[in-house]
Amino acid sequence: MSIAALRWRDPPAGPAIELLDQTALPAVERYVTCADVPSLVNAIRRLVVRGAPLLGIAGAYGVALAAARGEDVAEAAAAIAAARPTAVNLGWGARLALAAFQEAEQDAPLAALAQARSIADADEKACAQMAAIGLDLVPAGARILTHCNTGSLVTSGTGTAFGVVLAAHRAGLLEMLWVDETRPLLQGSRLTAYEADRAGVPHRVLADSAAASLMAAGQVDLIVVGADRIAADGSVANKVGTYGLAVLARHHDVPFVVVAPVSTIDFGTDDGASIVIEQRAPEEVTCIAGHQMAPAGTGVHNPAFDVTPPVLISAIVTESGVIQPVTRGNLRVLDTGS
Amino acid sequence: MSIAALRWRDPPAGPAIELLDQTALPAVERYVTCADVPSLVNAIRRLVVRGAPLLGIAGAYGVALAAARGEDVAEAAAAIAAARPTAVNLGWGARLALAAFQEAEQDAPLAALAQARSIADADEKACAQMAAIGLDLVPAGARILTHCNTGSLVTSGTGTAFGVVLAAHRAGLLEMLWVDETRPLLQGSRLTAYEADRAGVPHRVLADSAAASLMAAGQVDLIVVGADRIAADGSVANKVGTYGLAVLARHHDVPFVVVAPVSTIDFGTDDGASIVIEQRAPEEVTCIAGHQMAPAGTGVHNPAFDVTPPVLISAIVTESGVIQPVTRGNLRVLDTGS
Repeated sequence: MSIAALRWRDPPAGPAIELLDQTALPAVERYVTCADVPSLVNAIRRLVVRGAPLLGIAGAYGVALAAARGEDVAEAAAAIAAARPTAVNLGWGARLALAAFQEAEQDAPLAALAQARSIADADEKACAQMAAIGLDLVPAGARILTHCNTGSLVTSGTGTAFGVVLAAHRAGLLEMLWVDETRPLLQGSRLTAYEADRAGVPHRVLADSAAASLMAAGQVDLIVVGADRIAADGSVANKVGTYGLAVLARHHDVPFVVVAPVSTIDFGTDDGASIVIEQRAPEEVTCIAGHQMAPAGTGVHNPAFDVTPPVLISAIVTESGVIQPVTRGNLRVLDTGS
Repeated sequence: MSIAALRWRDPPAGPAIELLDQTALPAVERYVTCADVPSLVNAIRRLVVRGAPLLGIAGAYGVALAAARGEDVAEAAAAIAAARPTAVNLGWGARLALAAFQEAEQDAPLAALAQARSIADADEKACAQMAAIGLDLVPAGARILTHCNTGSLVTSGTGTAFGVVLAAHRAGLLEMLWVDETRPLLQGSRLTAYEADRAGVPHRVLADSAAASLMAAGQVDLIVVGADRIAADGSVANKVGTYGLAVLARHHDVPFVVVAPVSTIDFGTDDGASIVIEQRAPEEVTCIAGHQMAPAGTGVHNPAFDVTPPVLISAIVTESGVIQPVTRGNLRVLDTGS
């Protein structure tokens, strides 16, 4: 059932990182082999690998890869962290592996690899904890709406928001998972529908813009989403469209819950306005499956993320507990300074 | 500059209706010839021809076509009206042409055709009037956001909402037109971008879900949309996504204006809850440009329209004036009983 989104390959065939190519799913299940840091950075930029927790793991393995190849590990960590500006986990994972490398008294490359493995193991446990904690927020017969993709494709476990959905399904609480298709890259219809299908979760896909009338019709009991970065004030950067859902949730009195590991919280970013939003290529919007939809040369506004202010978030579920209400003070207790 | 979305072809080559195939734009400009009512009904269902005012014109020409062919005209009018359940103009146009046919003292087929031409002429004038009236609601330097497609592809003139945008551009008031791509059928990125490009209107396309953060950033001064049906209480059925924009507009204090001819108001539909919402094929969401995006067999929720309650609408611009505030009483003065 579980999907290995990232695999480490030891010598002699390696060292290398094998990534399940998320741009090709669900039509094709294939792995992309990254034998050096530039190819990993390229894969991160192309979204072959994506999702906050998995990017943290990939960042750590990337540093381990550079270490195994005898390259400049600090330089590798910096290059990996810069591959996508909004994803805080990327730099976090790279930094942890770099620290393990630098602090090792012997066999530093092995220490970096052990750190990457440890992050992956911890992520798997965090998923289970978030799912158990988040389950308390799910009513019986829940019709849950989600956005983007947050399951086993982006974690070492059952996922963040999707982990809660899966736990609800297994507990017999879930009536329906509404899956926003999540334009422009369709992570909902391509990836979440794929994961829901594999896990036997009842689901239906909808155009992102159909979520509003679904809420108005009383067909949504709960919205759960992941996060790419959480600022110190509780502002959540996540896939573009998340903020609009939060506004709609408030208007329709639907609880809006963010599920994310503590590593997603960036205490170095003071508030939502300080979060850098990655603008991506216009072709993501105007060109679908190789077909040009808009007239050639059409200008595009294509932010990858948006920022939801804490006032619109009912709760943030982490592996260390629920933050509710979402305030700077309630978040601060999770700051371990790492 | 003007685009002929519908052309009537007289004998000997006709009688026939030629429709600019809106499913093929902007890549291909081709006409579909409908030589009988079933082929017209099929073209309406496939969205070869679409948009409230143009559907009214197409409905009338369809009756004229049946009349010219010596067929049962009342039956043709009923078949055309039923082709798409939410589009009130379709039945309205067919009914007017049928009445002209039935009331004619001589050459009834010609009377039906004359009625269709008269509807098209009146629509062109209505567009000019709506544009002039709507212009008063546009501030200088306006950044206007629109949804779906409402220009010369769907009217005999410059359009409904797009007509106001075009008038603002010509008056030097428009800084930017934000074009929602409008999933699932991408009428925004395919058709509105095409019309904006041809008319030299500065524009940028965005994923529907990116509109919310654009509003939060203070980049939207006004939202203008068309309507497929307006109930007697002022509830507006329009392309799915319209309702969500209206909620977002209210949250961000952005004026939300509907532009539609009086023929779009259906005094026979008492309120929003009475409007039948057309559910369309799942493939519209899961299959893009012939490519299957979601796993095969994925369930889909695909309403073509949603309903915006009058309380969220700042104003309705018609050719007969502005309805503001949008109330049952203010709408009633436009009821001519036609």
